[in-house]
Amino acid sequence: MDTRTPPPERSPWLPFESRRRARDEKREAVLRTAVQLFLEQGYHRATLNEVADRLNITKPALYNYFRSKEDILFECWTIGQERVEDRIAEIAAADESGLVTLQMLVRAYAAIMASTFGASLVRFNVADLSEPNQKATLAGKRRIDRAFRNAIKQGIADGSVKPCDVKLTAFAILGALNWIGHWYKPGGELSPEQIANDFASRLTADIAKRPAKKPAEKKATKPVRKK
Amino acid sequence: MDTRTPPPERSPWLPFESRRRARDEKREAVLRTAVQLFLEQGYHRATLNEVADRLNITKPALYNYFRSKEDILFECWTIGQERVEDRIAEIAAADESGLVTLQMLVRAYAAIMASTFGASLVRFNVADLSEPNQKATLAGKRRIDRAFRNAIKQGIADGSVKPCDVKLTAFAILGALNWIGHWYKPGGELSPEQIANDFASRLTADIAKRPAKKPAEKKATKPVRKK
Repeated sequence: MDTRTPPPERSPWLPFESRRRARDEKREAVLRTAVQLFLEQGYHRATLNEVADRLNITKPALYNYFRSKEDILFECWTIGQERVEDRIAEIAAADESGLVTLQMLVRAYAAIMASTFGASLVRFNVADLSEPNQKATLAGKRRIDRAFRNAIKQGIADGSVKPCDVKLTAFAILGALNWIGHWYKPGGELSPEQIANDFASRLTADIAKRPAKKPAEKKATKPVRKK
Repeated sequence: MDTRTPPPERSPWLPFESRRRARDEKREAVLRTAVQLFLEQGYHRATLNEVADRLNITKPALYNYFRSKEDILFECWTIGQERVEDRIAEIAAADESGLVTLQMLVRAYAAIMASTFGASLVRFNVADLSEPNQKATLAGKRRIDRAFRNAIKQGIADGSVKPCDVKLTAFAILGALNWIGHWYKPGGELSPEQIANDFASRLTADIAKRPAKKPAEKKATKPVRKK
């Protein structure tokens, strides 16, 4: 029924740019499906066969995108970690007081923990990664720890946070946040935003200095951005 | 000088009671070694061969005490869980106010998290257990959750705790506590008792009602030794 003159012979291959994009999309689809399955069944029980099944492809086809199951696990972790680090960088750039920085960190991290890739930061076992990848995750954890500790230190210095044990305070806050990755179920009674807002005030309430009080002289301490 | 008649021929077997005790001790030694190795290397990487090696026995000898690797994992979890439940029962019997009960729970749970069997409650993956054992661990988690929630509810009712979202409050507290099982290293700068005492006041500071005295801020968290 189509009476137009036939177009020049069409290549069965997509143009390069579209191919790259299609490849990225497919790669991401593999990761999304895999992380979901790993979270549901545990990394060791979940099989790449099932990942492939859910995507209507064969298991060997997965190896176009990833070298191994461990490679997929590490990529899932990387996506979660990058999201956190992007937000840390944004928040540092906002250049707020230590307390406000800390609250922004709590809010951002809580929301990420309530996402699938975010949960992958805390639900999988580092021991299942290769040694270089284990090192990368430990370094990543340390960068997150440092961001929280720096905000607390800055808050103590600028008078927005009460003097406290910086390390224990960061552990207590991060623990409460990491637990979200374990208990949060999408579609529950609270949205990630509600949880994030609640935690931002809840987890800093005991160390926040009341603004009503006479503020100590405000030092213009900039967040120490290391590395 | 001993003129007693010689004793009846000595059995090469220990008396029943001693045998039972020896067996229990051996069983516990297997568990202690296994949980240590599982924590160091991850459950999947750790092998029963290495557990046996560390105990100077053969792998088949392990099967005198446990049916399977999974059986050992579940037993480790059970020991941690029983310790928590014993403390919950003791604390409930003390019949204190909601706030004091909550603080006692935090203190007890924190100290257990800093122990090897306690860490096994949060460091292993429930998905690695058989289905009945998974159910048992989930029921156990729920009992712990319930103890914390009940203390908070009781505190709101008796006026020792500020009105708050009971569920989120319990999640925040338990998250901070569970994280101890991940970061605590024996022989670190803080003892389990110091951490437990610090967390008992830290994690309840924002919901504790101040004694009618004076609304001025009271130092709720004593900074423990710093680095």
